[in-house]
Amino acid sequence: MAEYDLHCFAQSGNAYKVALMLQLNGADWQPHFVDFFNGGHRTPDYLAINEMGEVPVLRHGDVTLSQTGVILHYLVDQFGTFGGETPEEKREILRWLFWDNHKLTSYTATLRFMRMFAKTGETPVTEFLEGRAKIAYKVLDNHLKGSDWVAAPRATIADLSLCGYLFWPDEIGADFSAYANINAWLDRIKALEGWVHPYDLMPGHPLPETG
Amino acid sequence: MAEYDLHCFAQSGNAYKVALMLQLNGADWQPHFVDFFNGGHRTPDYLAINEMGEVPVLRHGDVTLSQTGVILHYLVDQFGTFGGETPEEKREILRWLFWDNHKLTSYTATLRFMRMFAKTGETPVTEFLEGRAKIAYKVLDNHLKGSDWVAAPRATIADLSLCGYLFWPDEIGADFSAYANINAWLDRIKALEGWVHPYDLMPGHPLPETG
Repeated sequence: MAEYDLHCFAQSGNAYKVALMLQLNGADWQPHFVDFFNGGHRTPDYLAINEMGEVPVLRHGDVTLSQTGVILHYLVDQFGTFGGETPEEKREILRWLFWDNHKLTSYTATLRFMRMFAKTGETPVTEFLEGRAKIAYKVLDNHLKGSDWVAAPRATIADLSLCGYLFWPDEIGADFSAYANINAWLDRIKALEGWVHPYDLMPGHPLPETG
Repeated sequence: MAEYDLHCFAQSGNAYKVALMLQLNGADWQPHFVDFFNGGHRTPDYLAINEMGEVPVLRHGDVTLSQTGVILHYLVDQFGTFGGETPEEKREILRWLFWDNHKLTSYTATLRFMRMFAKTGETPVTEFLEGRAKIAYKVLDNHLKGSDWVAAPRATIADLSLCGYLFWPDEIGADFSAYANINAWLDRIKALEGWVHPYDLMPGHPLPETG
Protein backbone atom coordinates (compact mmCIF):
# COMPACT_ATOMS: atom_id res chain seq x y z
CA MET A 1 0.00 0.00 0.00
CA ALA A 2 1.21 3.46 -0.87
CA GLU A 3 1.27 6.28 1.67
CA TYR A 4 -0.92 8.54 -0.46
CA ASP A 5 -3.87 7.46 -2.59
CA LEU A 6 -5.00 9.84 -5.29
CA HIS A 7 -8.37 9.41 -7.01
CA CYS A 8 -7.71 10.86 -10.45
CA PHE A 9 -7.67 10.43 -14.21
CA ALA A 10 -5.17 11.51 -16.83
CA GLN A 11 -7.30 14.22 -18.45
CA SER A 12 -7.95 16.07 -15.17
CA GLY A 13 -5.78 19.13 -14.79
CA ASN A 14 -7.15 19.52 -11.28
CA ALA A 15 -5.89 16.06 -10.37
CA TYR A 16 -2.61 16.92 -12.09
CA LYS A 17 -2.05 19.83 -9.70
CA VAL A 18 -1.90 17.35 -6.83
CA ALA A 19 -0.16 14.54 -8.74
CA LEU A 20 2.58 16.95 -9.77
CA MET A 21 3.08 18.04 -6.15
CA LEU A 22 3.41 14.39 -5.11
CA GLN A 23 5.73 13.65 -8.01
CA LEU A 24 8.01 16.65 -7.42
CA ASN A 25 8.33 15.61 -3.78
CA GLY A 26 9.13 11.99 -4.65
CA ALA A 27 6.17 10.89 -2.52
CA ASP A 28 5.05 7.31 -2.14
CA TRP A 29 1.71 7.61 -3.92
CA GLN A 30 -0.62 5.57 -6.01
CA PRO A 31 -3.28 6.70 -8.51
CA HIS A 32 -6.81 5.26 -8.40
CA PHE A 33 -8.57 5.65 -11.70
CA VAL A 34 -11.90 7.51 -11.71
CA ASP A 35 -13.80 6.77 -14.91
CA PHE A 36 -14.99 10.34 -15.32
CA PHE A 37 -16.07 10.01 -18.95
CA ASN A 38 -18.48 7.26 -17.91
CA GLY A 39 -19.82 9.13 -14.89
CA GLY A 40 -17.43 7.59 -12.36
CA HIS A 41 -17.44 10.84 -10.37
CA ARG A 42 -21.22 10.71 -9.86
CA THR A 43 -21.70 7.17 -8.59
CA PRO A 44 -23.04 6.71 -5.03
CA ASP A 45 -19.70 5.16 -4.02
CA TYR A 46 -17.73 8.12 -5.26
CA LEU A 47 -20.17 10.69 -3.84
CA ALA A 48 -19.72 8.99 -0.48
CA ILE A 49 -16.03 9.94 -0.72
CA ASN A 50 -16.66 13.40 -2.15
CA GLU A 51 -20.15 14.86 -2.03
CA MET A 52 -19.00 17.55 -4.48
CA GLY A 53 -18.70 14.90 -7.18
CA GLU A 54 -15.28 16.13 -8.23
CA VAL A 55 -11.80 14.83 -8.90
CA PRO A 56 -9.25 14.71 -7.26
CA VAL A 57 -9.59 13.20 -3.83
CA LEU A 58 -6.49 12.47 -1.76
CA ARG A 59 -6.43 9.89 1.01
CA HIS A 60 -3.65 9.84 3.56
CA GLY A 61 -4.16 7.53 6.50
CA ASP A 62 -7.48 8.51 8.05
CA VAL A 63 -7.61 11.82 6.25
CA THR A 64 -9.73 12.22 3.11
CA LEU A 65 -9.36 15.52 1.30
CA SER A 66 -10.96 17.21 -1.68
CA GLN A 67 -10.49 20.56 -3.43
CA THR A 68 -7.00 20.97 -4.85
CA GLY A 69 -6.36 24.19 -2.91
CA VAL A 70 -6.94 22.34 0.36
CA ILE A 71 -4.91 19.30 -0.68
CA LEU A 72 -1.97 21.38 -1.86
CA HIS A 73 -1.84 23.23 1.46
CA TYR A 74 -2.02 19.91 3.31
CA LEU A 75 0.93 18.59 1.30
CA VAL A 76 2.95 21.73 1.99
CA ASP A 77 2.56 20.88 5.69
CA GLN A 78 3.55 17.26 5.05
CA PHE A 79 6.62 17.89 2.89
CA GLY A 80 7.71 21.37 3.93
CA THR A 81 8.12 22.34 0.27
CA PHE A 82 6.44 24.72 -2.22
CA GLY A 83 4.86 26.75 0.59
CA GLY A 84 5.10 30.33 1.80
CA GLU A 85 7.71 31.36 4.33
CA THR A 86 6.07 34.52 5.65
CA PRO A 87 2.44 35.54 6.28
CA GLU A 88 2.66 37.74 3.19
CA GLU A 89 3.88 34.88 0.98
CA LYS A 90 1.21 32.58 2.38
CA ARG A 91 -1.50 35.13 1.58
CA GLU A 92 -0.07 35.68 -1.90
CA ILE A 93 -0.13 31.92 -2.55
CA LEU A 94 -3.72 31.66 -1.34
CA ARG A 95 -4.72 34.65 -3.44
CA TRP A 96 -3.48 33.05 -6.64
CA LEU A 97 -5.01 29.69 -5.74
CA PHE A 98 -8.41 31.37 -5.44
CA TRP A 99 -7.89 33.32 -8.61
CA ASP A 100 -6.91 30.13 -10.42
CA ASN A 101 -10.06 28.36 -9.28
CA HIS A 102 -12.33 31.28 -10.10
CA LYS A 103 -10.78 32.84 -13.16
CA LEU A 104 -8.27 30.58 -14.89
CA THR A 105 -8.97 26.88 -14.38
CA SER A 106 -12.73 27.42 -14.33
CA TYR A 107 -12.67 28.80 -17.88
CA THR A 108 -9.76 26.92 -19.47
CA ALA A 109 -10.84 23.52 -18.16
CA THR A 110 -14.41 24.00 -19.34
CA LEU A 111 -13.35 25.39 -22.70
CA ARG A 112 -11.09 22.36 -23.25
CA PHE A 113 -13.87 20.04 -22.14
CA MET A 114 -16.30 21.51 -24.68
CA ARG A 115 -13.86 21.42 -27.56
CA MET A 116 -11.93 18.26 -26.83
CA PHE A 117 -14.32 15.88 -25.10
CA ALA A 118 -17.92 17.09 -25.50
CA LYS A 119 -16.93 18.05 -29.07
CA THR A 120 -19.53 20.81 -29.24
CA GLY A 121 -17.68 22.67 -31.96
CA GLU A 122 -17.55 26.46 -31.79
CA THR A 123 -20.64 27.79 -30.02
CA PRO A 124 -21.67 30.92 -28.10
CA VAL A 125 -20.55 29.04 -24.98
CA THR A 126 -17.02 28.37 -26.25
CA GLU A 127 -16.86 31.98 -27.40
CA PHE A 128 -17.87 33.14 -23.92
CA LEU A 129 -15.37 30.84 -22.21
CA GLU A 130 -12.59 31.85 -24.56
CA GLY A 131 -13.23 35.53 -23.87
CA ARG A 132 -12.98 34.94 -20.14
CA ALA A 133 -9.89 32.74 -20.51
CA LYS A 134 -8.11 35.44 -22.52
CA ILE A 135 -8.74 37.99 -19.78
CA ALA A 136 -7.15 35.54 -17.35
CA TYR A 137 -4.12 34.88 -19.59
CA LYS A 138 -3.49 38.61 -19.77
CA VAL A 139 -3.67 39.03 -15.98
CA LEU A 140 -1.26 36.14 -15.45
CA ASP A 141 1.11 37.24 -18.19
CA ASN A 142 1.26 40.77 -16.77
CA HIS A 143 1.82 39.40 -13.30
CA LEU A 144 4.77 37.27 -14.48
CA LYS A 145 6.52 40.23 -16.08
CA GLY A 146 9.85 40.35 -14.30
CA SER A 147 9.02 37.44 -11.98
CA ASP A 148 10.14 33.86 -12.38
CA TRP A 149 7.36 32.50 -10.17
CA VAL A 150 3.86 33.55 -9.26
CA ALA A 151 3.81 34.09 -5.51
CA ALA A 152 7.37 33.97 -4.16
CA PRO A 153 10.99 34.07 -5.38
CA ARG A 154 10.72 30.29 -5.88
CA ALA A 155 8.14 27.80 -7.16
CA THR A 156 5.14 27.31 -4.85
CA ILE A 157 1.84 25.50 -4.95
CA ALA A 158 0.44 28.61 -6.66
CA ASP A 159 2.55 27.74 -9.70
CA LEU A 160 1.56 24.08 -9.52
CA SER A 161 -2.12 25.02 -9.37
CA LEU A 162 -2.09 27.63 -12.12
CA CYS A 163 -0.24 25.39 -14.60
CA GLY A 164 -2.74 22.54 -14.13
CA TYR A 165 -4.36 22.82 -17.57
CA LEU A 166 -1.75 24.85 -19.40
CA PHE A 167 0.37 22.00 -20.74
CA TRP A 168 -2.56 21.28 -23.06
CA PRO A 169 -2.72 24.49 -25.14
CA ASP A 170 -3.71 22.54 -28.26
CA GLU A 171 -6.57 20.86 -26.45
CA ILE A 172 -7.81 24.14 -24.97
CA GLY A 173 -7.35 25.81 -28.34
CA ALA A 174 -5.11 28.42 -26.75
CA ASP A 175 -2.16 30.12 -28.35
CA PHE A 176 0.31 31.27 -25.72
CA SER A 177 2.72 32.77 -28.24
CA ALA A 178 1.17 36.15 -27.45
CA TYR A 179 1.92 35.59 -23.76
CA ALA A 180 5.70 35.36 -23.60
CA ASN A 181 5.85 35.49 -19.82
CA ILE A 182 3.45 32.57 -19.48
CA ASN A 183 5.47 30.56 -21.99
CA ALA A 184 8.74 31.19 -20.19
CA TRP A 185 7.16 30.36 -16.83
CA LEU A 186 5.76 27.07 -18.17
CA ASP A 187 9.27 26.22 -19.39
CA ARG A 188 10.60 26.90 -15.88
CA ILE A 189 8.01 24.53 -14.44
CA LYS A 190 8.94 21.85 -17.00
CA ALA A 191 12.56 22.23 -15.89
CA LEU A 192 11.76 21.42 -12.24
CA GLU A 193 13.46 18.17 -11.30
CA GLY A 194 11.01 15.32 -11.72
CA TRP A 195 8.49 17.22 -13.86
CA VAL A 196 6.21 14.93 -15.87
CA HIS A 197 3.43 15.76 -18.34
CA PRO A 198 -0.05 14.92 -17.00
CA TYR A 199 -0.61 12.23 -19.63
CA ASP A 200 2.49 10.44 -18.33
CA LEU A 201 1.56 10.75 -14.67
CA MET A 202 -2.01 9.47 -14.30
CA PRO A 203 -4.02 6.59 -15.77
CA GLY A 204 -6.61 6.81 -18.54
CA HIS A 205 -4.77 8.22 -21.53
CA PRO A 206 -5.47 7.90 -24.36
CA LEU A 207 -9.25 7.64 -24.21
CA PRO A 208 -10.77 4.63 -25.98
CA GLU A 209 -11.93 5.39 -29.50
CA THR A 210 -15.62 6.26 -29.37
CA GLY A 211 -16.41 6.21 -32.97
CA MET B 1 -10.51 57.59 8.97
CA ALA B 2 -11.95 54.14 9.45
CA GLU B 3 -9.82 51.19 10.48
CA TYR B 4 -10.81 49.14 7.42
CA ASP B 5 -11.35 50.49 3.91
CA LEU B 6 -13.33 48.34 1.53
CA HIS B 7 -13.31 49.01 -2.21
CA CYS B 8 -16.72 47.76 -3.26
CA PHE B 9 -20.08 48.43 -4.90
CA ALA B 10 -23.59 47.41 -3.92
CA GLN B 11 -24.16 44.90 -6.73
CA SER B 12 -21.03 42.88 -5.95
CA GLY B 13 -21.79 39.72 -4.02
CA ASN B 14 -18.06 39.16 -3.70
CA ALA B 15 -17.68 42.50 -1.94
CA TYR B 16 -20.73 41.62 0.15
CA LYS B 17 -18.97 38.55 1.53
CA VAL B 18 -16.39 40.83 3.12
CA ALA B 19 -18.76 43.68 3.99
CA LEU B 20 -21.01 41.23 5.82
CA MET B 21 -18.06 39.89 7.82
CA LEU B 22 -17.13 43.45 8.80
CA GLN B 23 -20.74 44.28 9.61
CA LEU B 24 -21.38 41.17 11.73
CA ASN B 25 -18.24 41.96 13.72
CA GLY B 26 -19.22 45.58 14.27
CA ALA B 27 -15.94 46.66 12.67
CA ASP B 28 -14.97 50.25 12.07
CA TRP B 29 -15.05 50.22 8.28
CA GLN B 30 -15.77 52.46 5.37
CA PRO B 31 -16.84 51.61 1.83
CA HIS B 32 -15.08 53.17 -1.17
CA PHE B 33 -17.24 53.07 -4.26
CA VAL B 34 -15.82 51.35 -7.35
CA ASP B 35 -17.78 52.38 -10.44
CA PHE B 36 -17.76 48.88 -11.90
CA PHE B 37 -20.48 49.49 -14.47
CA ASN B 38 -18.37 52.25 -15.97
CA GLY B 39 -15.13 50.27 -15.93
CA GLY B 40 -13.88 51.53 -12.58
CA HIS B 41 -12.24 48.18 -11.91
CA ARG B 42 -10.06 48.41 -15.02
CA THR B 43 -8.59 51.90 -14.65
CA PRO B 44 -4.80 52.16 -14.22
CA ASP B 45 -5.33 53.51 -10.69
CA TYR B 46 -7.45 50.55 -9.68
CA LEU B 47 -5.19 48.00 -11.39
CA ALA B 48 -2.33 49.46 -9.36
CA ILE B 49 -4.26 48.38 -6.25
CA ASN B 50 -5.38 45.04 -7.67
CA GLU B 51 -3.75 43.72 -10.83
CA MET B 52 -6.56 41.15 -11.07
CA GLY B 53 -9.01 43.98 -11.83
CA GLU B 54 -11.53 42.67 -9.35
CA VAL B 55 -13.64 43.86 -6.46
CA PRO B 56 -13.33 43.79 -3.46
CA VAL B 57 -10.06 45.07 -2.11
CA LEU B 58 -9.59 45.55 1.62
CA ARG B 59 -7.06 47.94 3.08
CA HIS B 60 -6.06 47.71 6.71
CA GLY B 61 -3.11 49.84 7.74
CA ASP B 62 -0.26 48.92 5.42
CA VAL B 63 -1.93 45.72 4.28
CA THR B 64 -3.79 45.61 0.94
CA LEU B 65 -5.70 42.41 0.25
CA SER B 66 -7.71 40.98 -2.62
CA GLN B 67 -9.60 37.73 -3.21
CA THR B 68 -12.46 37.28 -0.77
CA GLY B 69 -11.14 33.93 0.46
CA VAL B 70 -7.91 35.58 1.55
CA ILE B 71 -9.62 38.61 3.07
CA LEU B 72 -12.09 36.49 5.04
CA HIS B 73 -9.25 34.41 6.52
CA TYR B 74 -7.41 37.61 7.41
CA LEU B 75 -10.47 38.96 9.21
CA VAL B 76 -10.90 35.69 11.12
CA ASP B 77 -7.41 36.32 12.49
CA GLN B 78 -8.28 39.92 13.32
CA PHE B 79 -11.62 39.32 15.06
CA GLY B 80 -11.32 35.73 16.25
CA THR B 81 -14.81 35.00 14.92
CA PHE B 82 -16.34 32.86 12.13
CA GLY B 83 -13.20 30.72 11.87
CA GLY B 84 -12.39 27.05 12.41
CA GLU B 85 -11.36 25.77 15.79
CA THR B 86 -9.55 22.59 14.72
CA PRO B 87 -7.39 21.67 11.70
CA GLU B 88 -10.35 19.65 10.37
CA GLU B 89 -12.74 22.61 10.64
CA LYS B 90 -10.19 24.91 9.05
CA ARG B 91 -9.78 22.53 6.12
CA GLU B 92 -13.54 22.17 5.78
CA ILE B 93 -13.96 25.94 5.68
CA LEU B 94 -11.23 26.28 3.05
CA ARG B 95 -12.78 23.47 1.02
CA TRP B 96 -16.12 25.23 0.78
CA LEU B 97 -14.49 28.57 0.04
CA PHE B 98 -12.75 27.01 -2.97
CA TRP B 99 -15.89 25.25 -4.06
CA ASP B 100 -17.82 28.51 -3.78
CA ASN B 101 -15.31 30.32 -5.96
CA HIS B 102 -15.12 27.56 -8.55
CA LYS B 103 -18.62 26.14 -8.65
CA LEU B 104 -21.20 28.42 -7.04
CA THR B 105 -20.27 32.09 -7.19
CA SER B 106 -18.56 31.68 -10.56
CA TYR B 107 -21.81 30.55 -12.20
CA THR B 108 -24.46 32.41 -10.18
CA ALA B 109 -22.67 35.76 -10.34
CA THR B 110 -22.12 35.50 -14.08
CA LEU B 111 -25.65 34.30 -14.74
CA ARG B 112 -27.05 37.25 -12.77
CA PHE B 113 -24.71 39.61 -14.62
CA MET B 114 -25.92 38.40 -18.01
CA ARG B 115 -29.60 38.58 -17.12
CA MET B 116 -29.69 41.61 -14.87
CA PHE B 117 -26.97 43.96 -16.06
CA ALA B 118 -25.75 42.92 -19.52
CA LYS B 119 -29.42 42.15 -20.32
CA THR B 120 -28.51 39.52 -22.89
CA GLY B 121 -31.84 37.77 -22.57
CA GLU B 122 -31.88 33.97 -22.62
CA THR B 123 -28.98 32.65 -24.67
CA PRO B 124 -26.92 29.45 -24.93
CA VAL B 125 -24.57 31.07 -22.42
CA THR B 126 -27.28 31.70 -19.80
CA GLU B 127 -28.51 28.16 -20.41
CA PHE B 128 -25.00 26.82 -19.82
CA LEU B 129 -24.52 28.90 -16.68
CA GLU B 130 -27.92 27.93 -15.31
CA GLY B 131 -27.17 24.25 -15.81
CA ARG B 132 -23.92 24.59 -13.89
CA ALA B 133 -25.56 26.67 -11.15
CA LYS B 134 -28.26 24.04 -10.64
CA ILE B 135 -25.64 21.33 -10.12
CA ALA B 136 -24.10 23.57 -7.46
CA TYR B 137 -27.46 24.26 -5.73
CA LYS B 138 -28.03 20.54 -5.49
CA VAL B 139 -24.60 19.86 -3.97
CA LEU B 140 -25.10 22.63 -1.40
CA ASP B 141 -28.66 21.61 -0.61
CA ASN B 142 -27.61 17.98 -0.04
CA HIS B 143 -24.72 19.11 2.11
CA LEU B 144 -27.01 21.18 4.34
CA LYS B 145 -29.34 18.27 4.99
CA GLY B 146 -29.28 17.91 8.75
CA SER B 147 -26.72 20.70 9.23
CA ASP B 148 -27.42 24.25 10.28
CA TRP B 149 -24.16 25.57 8.90
CA VAL B 150 -21.79 24.61 6.11
CA ALA B 151 -18.46 23.82 7.73
CA ALA B 152 -18.86 23.72 11.51
CA PRO B 153 -21.59 23.55 14.18
CA ARG B 154 -21.76 27.35 13.95
CA ALA B 155 -21.63 30.01 11.25
CA THR B 156 -18.21 30.49 9.64
CA ILE B 157 -16.72 32.43 6.77
CA ALA B 158 -17.74 29.49 4.57
CA ASP B 159 -21.37 30.47 5.11
CA LEU B 160 -20.61 34.15 4.56
CA SER B 161 -18.85 33.34 1.29
CA LEU B 162 -21.42 30.93 -0.09
CA CYS B 163 -24.37 33.24 0.57
CA GLY B 164 -22.71 36.14 -1.25
CA TYR B 165 -25.05 36.16 -4.26
CA LEU B 166 -27.96 34.15 -2.89
CA PHE B 167 -29.99 36.99 -1.41
CA TRP B 168 -30.70 37.96 -5.03
CA PRO B 169 -32.60 34.92 -6.31
CA ASP B 170 -34.87 37.09 -8.47
CA GLU B 171 -31.88 38.77 -10.10
CA ILE B 172 -30.15 35.45 -10.75
CA GLY B 173 -33.43 33.99 -11.96
CA ALA B 174 -33.12 31.18 -9.42
CA ASP B 175 -35.95 29.47 -7.63
CA PHE B 176 -34.77 28.09 -4.30
CA SER B 177 -38.17 26.65 -3.40
CA ALA B 178 -36.90 23.29 -4.63
CA TYR B 179 -33.92 23.58 -2.27
CA ALA B 180 -35.49 23.65 1.17
CA ASN B 181 -32.19 23.28 3.01
CA ILE B 182 -30.69 26.26 1.20
CA ASN B 183 -33.76 28.34 2.01
CA ALA B 184 -33.66 27.46 5.70
CA TRP B 185 -29.92 28.13 5.86
CA LEU B 186 -30.34 31.56 4.22
CA ASP B 187 -32.98 32.34 6.85
CA ARG B 188 -30.50 31.40 9.56
CA ILE B 189 -27.95 33.77 8.06
CA LYS B 190 -30.53 36.56 7.92
CA ALA B 191 -31.20 35.96 11.61
CA LEU B 192 -27.56 36.57 12.59
CA GLU B 193 -27.35 39.67 14.74
CA GLY B 194 -26.50 42.64 12.56
CA TRP B 195 -27.33 41.01 9.22
CA VAL B 196 -28.01 43.49 6.44
CA HIS B 197 -28.99 42.94 2.80
CA PRO B 198 -26.19 43.83 0.34
CA TYR B 199 -28.17 46.71 -1.15
CA ASP B 200 -28.35 48.28 2.32
CA LEU B 201 -24.68 47.77 3.11
CA MET B 202 -22.67 49.16 0.18
CA PRO B 203 -22.95 52.21 -2.11
CA GLY B 204 -24.27 52.27 -5.67
CA HIS B 205 -27.81 50.98 -5.46
CA PRO B 206 -30.02 51.53 -7.35
CA LEU B 207 -28.15 51.91 -10.60
CA PRO B 208 -28.90 55.10 -12.55
CA GLU B 209 -31.52 54.62 -15.23
CA THR B 210 -29.82 53.88 -18.52
CA GLY B 211 -32.88 54.17 -20.67
